[in-house]
Amino acid sequence: MTVLSEDLIAEANAREIAALDEDYDALGRKLARGGLAIDAIKDRVAAFSVAVPSWGAGRGGTRFAKFPIPGEPTNIHEKLEDCAVIQQLSRVTPRVSPHFPWDKVGDYKGLRQEAAALGLGFDAVNSNTFQDQPGQARTYATGSLSSTVAATRAQAVEHNIECIEIGQQLGSRDLTVWVGDGTNFPGQQDFARSLDRYLDAASQVYAALPGDWRMLLEHKMFEPAFYSTVISDWGSSILAAQELGPKAKCLVDLGHHAPNVNIEQIVARLHRFGKLGGFHFNDSKYGDDDLDSGSINPHQLFLVFNELVEAEAHPRDGFDPSYMIDQSHNVTDPIESMLSSAEAITSCFAKALLVDREALHAAQEANDTMMAFQALRRPYTIDVAPILARARAEAGGAIDVLATYRASRWRERKAQERKPVGLGAGIV
Amino acid sequence: MTVLSEDLIAEANAREIAALDEDYDALGRKLARGGLAIDAIKDRVAAFSVAVPSWGAGRGGTRFAKFPIPGEPTNIHEKLEDCAVIQQLSRVTPRVSPHFPWDKVGDYKGLRQEAAALGLGFDAVNSNTFQDQPGQARTYATGSLSSTVAATRAQAVEHNIECIEIGQQLGSRDLTVWVGDGTNFPGQQDFARSLDRYLDAASQVYAALPGDWRMLLEHKMFEPAFYSTVISDWGSSILAAQELGPKAKCLVDLGHHAPNVNIEQIVARLHRFGKLGGFHFNDSKYGDDDLDSGSINPHQLFLVFNELVEAEAHPRDGFDPSYMIDQSHNVTDPIESMLSSAEAITSCFAKALLVDREALHAAQEANDTMMAFQALRRPYTIDVAPILARARAEAGGAIDVLATYRASRWRERKAQERKPVGLGAGIV
Amino acid sequence: MTVLSEDLIAEANAREIAALDEDYDALGRKLARGGLAIDAIKDRVAAFSVAVPSWGAGRGGTRFAKFPIPGEPTNIHEKLEDCAVIQQLSRVTPRVSPHFPWDKVGDYKGLRQEAAALGLGFDAVNSNTFQDQPGQARTYATGSLSSTVAATRAQAVEHNIECIEIGQQLGSRDLTVWVGDGTNFPGQQDFARSLDRYLDAASQVYAALPGDWRMLLEHKMFEPAFYSTVISDWGSSILAAQELGPKAKCLVDLGHHAPNVNIEQIVARLHRFGKLGGFHFNDSKYGDDDLDSGSINPHQLFLVFNELVEAEAHPRDGFDPSYMIDQSHNVTDPIESMLSSAEAITSCFAKALLVDREALHAAQEANDTMMAFQALRRPYTIDVAPILARARAEAGGAIDVLATYRASRWRERKAQERKPVGLGAGIV
Amino acid sequence: MTVLSEDLIAEANAREIAALDEDYDALGRKLARGGLAIDAIKDRVAAFSVAVPSWGAGRGGTRFAKFPIPGEPTNIHEKLEDCAVIQQLSRVTPRVSPHFPWDKVGDYKGLRQEAAALGLGFDAVNSNTFQDQPGQARTYATGSLSSTVAATRAQAVEHNIECIEIGQQLGSRDLTVWVGDGTNFPGQQDFARSLDRYLDAASQVYAALPGDWRMLLEHKMFEPAFYSTVISDWGSSILAAQELGPKAKCLVDLGHHAPNVNIEQIVARLHRFGKLGGFHFNDSKYGDDDLDSGSINPHQLFLVFNELVEAEAHPRDGFDPSYMIDQSHNVTDPIESMLSSAEAITSCFAKALLVDREALHAAQEANDTMMAFQALRRPYTIDVAPILARARAEAGGAIDVLATYRASRWRERKAQERKPVGLGAGIV
Repeated sequence: MTVLSEDLIAEANAREIAALDEDYDALGRKLARGGLAIDAIKDRVAAFSVAVPSWGAGRGGTRFAKFPIPGEPTNIHEKLEDCAVIQQLSRVTPRVSPHFPWDKVGDYKGLRQEAAALGLGFDAVNSNTFQDQPGQARTYATGSLSSTVAATRAQAVEHNIECIEIGQQLGSRDLTVWVGDGTNFPGQQDFARSLDRYLDAASQVYAALPGDWRMLLEHKMFEPAFYSTVISDWGSSILAAQELGPKAKCLVDLGHHAPNVNIEQIVARLHRFGKLGGFHFNDSKYGDDDLDSGSINPHQLFLVFNELVEAEAHPRDGFDPSYMIDQSHNVTDPIESMLSSAEAITSCFAKALLVDREALHAAQEANDTMMAFQALRRPYTIDVAPILARARAEAGGAIDVLATYRASRWRERKAQERKPVGLGAGIV
Repeated sequence: MTVLSEDLIAEANAREIAALDEDYDALGRKLARGGLAIDAIKDRVAAFSVAVPSWGAGRGGTRFAKFPIPGEPTNIHEKLEDCAVIQQLSRVTPRVSPHFPWDKVGDYKGLRQEAAALGLGFDAVNSNTFQDQPGQARTYATGSLSSTVAATRAQAVEHNIECIEIGQQLGSRDLTVWVGDGTNFPGQQDFARSLDRYLDAASQVYAALPGDWRMLLEHKMFEPAFYSTVISDWGSSILAAQELGPKAKCLVDLGHHAPNVNIEQIVARLHRFGKLGGFHFNDSKYGDDDLDSGSINPHQLFLVFNELVEAEAHPRDGFDPSYMIDQSHNVTDPIESMLSSAEAITSCFAKALLVDREALHAAQEANDTMMAFQALRRPYTIDVAPILARARAEAGGAIDVLATYRASRWRERKAQERKPVGLGAGIV
Repeated sequence: MTVLSEDLIAEANAREIAALDEDYDALGRKLARGGLAIDAIKDRVAAFSVAVPSWGAGRGGTRFAKFPIPGEPTNIHEKLEDCAVIQQLSRVTPRVSPHFPWDKVGDYKGLRQEAAALGLGFDAVNSNTFQDQPGQARTYATGSLSSTVAATRAQAVEHNIECIEIGQQLGSRDLTVWVGDGTNFPGQQDFARSLDRYLDAASQVYAALPGDWRMLLEHKMFEPAFYSTVISDWGSSILAAQELGPKAKCLVDLGHHAPNVNIEQIVARLHRFGKLGGFHFNDSKYGDDDLDSGSINPHQLFLVFNELVEAEAHPRDGFDPSYMIDQSHNVTDPIESMLSSAEAITSCFAKALLVDREALHAAQEANDTMMAFQALRRPYTIDVAPILARARAEAGGAIDVLATYRASRWRERKAQERKPVGLGAGIV
Repeated sequence: MTVLSEDLIAEANAREIAALDEDYDALGRKLARGGLAIDAIKDRVAAFSVAVPSWGAGRGGTRFAKFPIPGEPTNIHEKLEDCAVIQQLSRVTPRVSPHFPWDKVGDYKGLRQEAAALGLGFDAVNSNTFQDQPGQARTYATGSLSSTVAATRAQAVEHNIECIEIGQQLGSRDLTVWVGDGTNFPGQQDFARSLDRYLDAASQVYAALPGDWRMLLEHKMFEPAFYSTVISDWGSSILAAQELGPKAKCLVDLGHHAPNVNIEQIVARLHRFGKLGGFHFNDSKYGDDDLDSGSINPHQLFLVFNELVEAEAHPRDGFDPSYMIDQSHNVTDPIESMLSSAEAITSCFAKALLVDREALHAAQEANDTMMAFQALRRPYTIDVAPILARARAEAGGAIDVLATYRASRWRERKAQERKPVGLGAGIV
């Protein structure tokens, strides 16, 4: 079963294939001059994948407002459909990362089959202890895993364990834990005791992990707390992961850092110390803006992938990061944003594959700064779009993902079928 | 009519008055040694005031969640009551700044009388073109005053003019215009054309200002737009105000700037060029955090007031800024936060009054950097709480505002009377 | 007269020309499919130029240390030679921007002829009132154009006027004024009076400008002053330029802004208000790092050029910005850094030329955010290196500028000829 | 032997003592009402101390210029004299932190006696591998402890070991290691291998530590390297300290962090994980501005001391941080800046002592955010100057340190005696 007509894709590709062949061949000749086989690069690109978050299929918003669009999905079933569209066109997003309780259903085995029928699997499970749900016994208003209230911590632990259980039914292998715990005032909480409580509660979640699971700790500098957060930076994250144990790893969201911070070095540090667990890809200019990956600073994204390709080649204590797109699509059709973002992410991976690592390391060893820089800069400037397009086309995806999606009129059709979303009035 | 019992306040004050007298007298002697008359300072403090925003009486939240508290006000009438509590205790917040359409009622003359009966007047009117309202003809999803759609701009202009008309009935004199217009992607809009459209629409609002009104332009670096905003900084704001005309002034929100920016210098610049219109007081550590005034960086708030007292003494083209608290009370009782914030703001004003401006200017002229710095530092370190408390007590307010408020059990009583607020599930 | 052997360049190019032809033709076919004629783009690239600063030919350093390299130039004559190498290879840097008193000589007509013989002209003159020179009557320790001391201001004015006079002999047309004036302590100077003094002194410099000259005001957020600077941001800069008159314009250095600021929007604003005067190109991650252009955030540089190409197409009050590289080459051979930077800058110009402005504007008008973004993103990803290389080769420059420079063994030869530079011990 | 006349101090104090007694008594009564004994606070303040750096006795500068003042010290002997002035007046700076090779002498036992005679001891020794010295075998141009060149690393290790040996003769107990190692270009060095080399070299230094010594690792985000630094943040610092061993601790310089970072939480985290080693006190607005402590953000300094007093009360794995002032006095007399800074630092310590920790913890436990905040805010607003002045006066110091220093005419006298410092022409 495919959500979009295969004929539609084939027809669209037919219009693009001649140009693609020409560009791919030209690039192939250029790379060959540098000793690279374009098909080998293409094969590695074809094997690359990144998960999409179920909630990312809906429009996002801010505390000021949310502006819905017609045809937005309003439940996990519709969200899976939209994720299937992304995967069918892009061929790099075969897994969906669910979020609970947002994606709660009665029958998780059924949900897994439903996804499989759409060509999708499930990725890391995300717990939610930053919001109160109707009927919830304890409020998270003053914290969850780090709450001063033992019963609240217990409730948060229990929720995380339930997420693991659901995840097992869905075929997941990772639990991503992000908490909104923190403070808005100096003095509101004691820094050390808050972390003690967090670690105590987190270790109970950790203890419930199945043997092959990992617990991914996601740090964040601020928001929703604006003076301090319990796991505010990679330093707090890795020390917490060390205390919890080998199955605890650190997850990097590209928008959760202080201004000017060198994120690619953080990636290298986490890998160096055996704790690189995964990524939430997005981009930002100011804070946790959750903009489309690579839309603001594509070079930074490339430098991150340069570290990842380097780390894979020098795994030290292993290399198995979990990749997910995590964006808030406030002004675009979420499907279009994820198609564009998947392209941006995969491009950076492909460019990082083009780096001549021997030349790079030789220049580094020789302190030939300019040539070391050029060893990264030259592949960055290469247009790898033909490699991605060829990989997609060979896998049944679209050469021009956005044009083909628009031609499908998917959103217009869903606008007829799906129930409308109400206005998001904002919170302010 | 008073919202709290005057007896309650009097009894609370009776327990504090001896200590206050002792501290006030000791401070008076200290100041007298430096040639300052404490009563004169106290009189100036007694004449100081700052407006509170109607919406600030409710709990705030983030895109992730809002956690309501029992007894929160849910309409303008309840909000006015809570503002009256703040004013009765603090005696420095005699005016409320309304926001439309949030505070819409059928009878504005009646609302003005209702406020007056509570001891309150109205301050600047705030328009809202950053959210869609049910039944609204045009969406602001892609902008308001700067929208590419002429009908949307016209609707936004019309709304602002309606705000002026309401404001006239309420006794206001200023219209504060903040728009959420901006972009999330490079290329989304043309920077110059967006500003052209904004200026064209804003000039239509400007044309509708009554003779004694001002239009206060509020700039903001980011949020809800995360790549660019139309009026992003004080430079854009003052150039827009110059184009609009003499009644257009610039409003400074302390949380709307880039990291590290010297806000007190911006205040001085706006005054130097005749465009300082007013303030939204709050504090922040990361972005537009809307934390309690002075809670994060009280010294910066003092330096801002140092510029204001300096500007008043050297008015050049006049000095008449509008002061308002603008905070998001996510984790506290909003009444308590505004009581605490009004104290922090007034303290900074009082400290700025203690600056020996002749000594300061003499040190500046002589390039005696250390003594110029000390001329600001010494008053900053002085504990002016007794001056504020005395001024409050003399005006019928509370010596210890927070303790007296808690003793009144206002919130607990309102929790019985008012209808509960639903969960804010967040937008994300 | 050429500084490098033309044969050397010809031989190097001979080895590259076949590959270049192949890449150029492939890119030409690709662009033609989108309706663009590659030769027309190449011609515009060939007409582009950017100045290099005389002082950039030497190694830079920090307050901690400077590490010289053998063969560094130590006077304006050697610096001109090195600039001639850059121009001969890159063909986009035909002008040198001098700095006084660093480049003082006895005979400026002779210097102009010397430069001309090397194929070079002179660009904007840079004055220096941020350092004291041996024998100088008044110190700039507490400021220059904004000093509280009238005689110091007069000395600074006089120096600037002397710079204009020298510039006239050299064929310059712009005076770039950057002052280090500012403060390290709150209270050290009065913000308004400092600006008054600056404006008064600057207007005396302005009055001495020849009819066809411009005065370029360069703002900077911090360093060497760390609490405030007199012309700290584009807002202060444009208001100062407005007061001075039509010949005063604003110069943007890419590293002189607050963190996260949207520089491309500032460029658009300055153009919108008729005050865009020029650029100091470099890159930065933290502050005024003066790194190689495009080395950290090449996408931002592209977005700046997108505004410039847009501005040229819609000139409003004219479009004639002055372009200069301004970097501190602390860890590289300055010639290599300027070759690499000139390439990065020209690449961004070329990519901006590829933007389909009709499609961009149509998407903006239609609020088709994704397609507006793609209208910028697609040209950004195109590898324009063949266009630049072809333009260079046709003008007698090198196809591979860095390899050809290394093959010339210029620096090694100069290391034999030039006198060594002493250790820079740092200031700390 | 005292550097200043004891009579001068006594006479100056005699003019201030009546006012001080009055203020001290008034504050004593106020504190007593809250259950605090002012004399007990004063005794703890009297026991507090902070080291001053030898190099801080000279004027600092930037890469643009250094402006010397008459009477500046130019060798370690003159610097010790100036430090003795600071100690004699302030009574809180009994130790000097030396820096090598800047403070090299032939006879360290003699130097120790010379200091002792001035009432001074020695604090942490600082090594310098960020500059090249005349005659040095290997350059640090491309790094020191992390250099790719084995001989360079060995030279840096050897220098650090020599610093330890000198420190043993001087009575020091700590070695502070800050390196300028880092990169200015993406790709310049491999992040992981650089750290490997750093750790390998640092472990050789560590191995040479005497039994009771500590090695303090000082992280820094940027400058002199502007793309990455080897020990860039507290995360890198603590992981390095963990690998090195229990004698390795982390040193926090208040100006070495990313914008907006919560430094007081970092302090708490380092303490929580047993690695808090010490502080370099200063203040900053933009980067490593090295401004006077507390001059920009005194509240942050208070919050840091709040953590320190909290940590001392709950030592977990011990509490023994090393405190030093580390500032660059570019525009003031360094003695005046250090007197003012010592006062600012001690004030924050005193205010932190006034915090009612039981009330604070109770409010935290109860999630009474407003009262937890007030538990910090109230002591922050108290003017503790009388406590500090009384402690100083009782120890023989000056009540008004700045006025007494100026009355001593120390600098004017030294301007006659000491040889003048040449112009610092800047590096740029």
